[in-house]
Amino acid sequence: MSSTTDYAISLASVQAAAERIHGFAHRTPVLTCHALETIAAEDGAPKRLFFKCENFQKVGAFKYRGALNAVKKSLQEKGEKGDTTFVTHSSGNHAQALSLAARDANCKAVIVMPNNSPSVKQKAVRGYGAEVILCKSTNEAREKTANDVVETTGAQFVHPSNDPDVMSGQGTVALELLEQAKQEYGVELDAIVVPIGGAGLCSGIAMAAKSIQSGIKVFAVEPTGAADAYNSFQKRELMGHTSRVDTVADGLRTQLGNNNWPVVRDFVDEIILVSDDEIVSAMKLIWERMKLVVESSGAVATAAVLAHKLPAGITNVGIVFSGGNVDLEKLPWASA
Amino acid sequence: MSSTTDYAISLASVQAAAERIHGFAHRTPVLTCHALETIAAEDGAPKRLFFKCENFQKVGAFKYRGALNAVKKSLQEKGEKGDTTFVTHSSGNHAQALSLAARDANCKAVIVMPNNSPSVKQKAVRGYGAEVILCKSTNEAREKTANDVVETTGAQFVHPSNDPDVMSGQGTVALELLEQAKQEYGVELDAIVVPIGGAGLCSGIAMAAKSIQSGIKVFAVEPTGAADAYNSFQKRELMGHTSRVDTVADGLRTQLGNNNWPVVRDFVDEIILVSDDEIVSAMKLIWERMKLVVESSGAVATAAVLAHKLPAGITNVGIVFSGGNVDLEKLPWASA
Repeated sequence: MSSTTDYAISLASVQAAAERIHGFAHRTPVLTCHALETIAAEDGAPKRLFFKCENFQKVGAFKYRGALNAVKKSLQEKGEKGDTTFVTHSSGNHAQALSLAARDANCKAVIVMPNNSPSVKQKAVRGYGAEVILCKSTNEAREKTANDVVETTGAQFVHPSNDPDVMSGQGTVALELLEQAKQEYGVELDAIVVPIGGAGLCSGIAMAAKSIQSGIKVFAVEPTGAADAYNSFQKRELMGHTSRVDTVADGLRTQLGNNNWPVVRDFVDEIILVSDDEIVSAMKLIWERMKLVVESSGAVATAAVLAHKLPAGITNVGIVFSGGNVDLEKLPWASA
Repeated sequence: MSSTTDYAISLASVQAAAERIHGFAHRTPVLTCHALETIAAEDGAPKRLFFKCENFQKVGAFKYRGALNAVKKSLQEKGEKGDTTFVTHSSGNHAQALSLAARDANCKAVIVMPNNSPSVKQKAVRGYGAEVILCKSTNEAREKTANDVVETTGAQFVHPSNDPDVMSGQGTVALELLEQAKQEYGVELDAIVVPIGGAGLCSGIAMAAKSIQSGIKVFAVEPTGAADAYNSFQKRELMGHTSRVDTVADGLRTQLGNNNWPVVRDFVDEIILVSDDEIVSAMKLIWERMKLVVESSGAVATAAVLAHKLPAGITNVGIVFSGGNVDLEKLPWASA
């Protein structure tokens, strides 16, 4: 493992983010569910599951943490109090997050969204007062459109996952989860299981959790149909998607960036793949048994645990419900 | 108002129920939602809404409280520790509740269910180890079938709403809600808004809340398509359904019994009607904004508040999410 100075983020940057977003972002609850623990148990070995409910976060997803940290840090560094424009491209939740974060800081947001993003997400972004620019659903189109906004307006770009301030903000999930497991349940977690898409959340959590408790395991869970992190991890080399991206977990279709990759490479223990069937089945079970609305991308960590894909000997497991923004008119099991 | 000795239940019987179910039933959380408060606000008058989440209760509904109280009280009175059979007829949640309550007390349950009850509810009942007997979806067929079981097996019948021990058990929701509003939010509630079907929950809550805090308002909310309580309340006389029952809120299709009626008549301030459209719209909004799975019957109280149907001057409102058991394959807005 290299020294932390090589990385875009550190425990200190995550702790600074926690201070910056304190009082704005919700300290979301950590819930348990006996029914899911029964399914997760294996060969007589019980599992205790602690679900960090970022579906209850502002804008319905953890993304608010990172966006707000980026906005506030930028204003702090410039000595400004508002009136800056922030721009991003996003498949959904980061769009809402940056919109609200900008509004909360008296700033403006311009959001570049793929034209196939769920209507509920486009509507929510406009509801937060942001300007929406639609583009084709390719990484190239998104980046070019966002760059055009930066060049024509001088707006500040905030990448959804590869921005170090965003990564640090997402890492605050781990600070709270470790603390809540101890304070509220008297438990030291053996592992945290977290979805991986662009890896903003995953790298922030891995850096924070491993720095605080070096023995903890961090498992990143990725859909089989968007396995760039898995492939990179096998090759020990950052790779983009090598085949067509195809997964129900729309929030995880993006790919790792150069700031995320070294953290994932060095601080994540394993990348676990789950199929769309496993994701949808876990998502439905969470709705049925926990009475919580969690989106497909937010259910992948649970999917891995319920499918018994964790290594043996892991008892106390923190699981991140990353978000709950679902188009209720288009539920994945309705079309199945 | 008559003296409490005229009623099937009292504050004391609700408090005794609370003691009996303590440690078995969950003390469900009370949550808030800024987005819904914004919609509920009226003419510049803010509303603070405190949602009692009985969708998180065991079996996914408040019904576990009443069923467990009935089972435990029966065993106490007989000096028995188990091995009794309990029987009921129920459109769903009480069925699961009695099944689990019986199992928790080492007893057996036989459940008479209408043959059109949601599959998820039939499955859940069997999952709790109860025997299911299906019958026609009429009150007569249910009652006759349950009576047959009582006569042939000597089982003890526990009515879903008109049983005094069930009513007292449901009233424990009010004890907790009043206490949690004060302890966790520093607020004395001006009103509690609660769904009314058979009125087990409503009568228990009205008795408990009014006995503790005489100035509090209790509003019962009923679907327009199953308005027996509303009609009874207008006539000041217990009436059954006078027209065909037709509402999306399947848990509220039953009617008041002789034990419920006097409590509702004397302790409820108003019965408010809501349409199926208002119910479905509230239910969807709860899912979208609060990320909580609440069933149609559990959303009627919210529907009344969001449709601005409460009298003016009510600020701090307790709302009961009575349950969260939904057939996810058949969502009401999917067919709309």
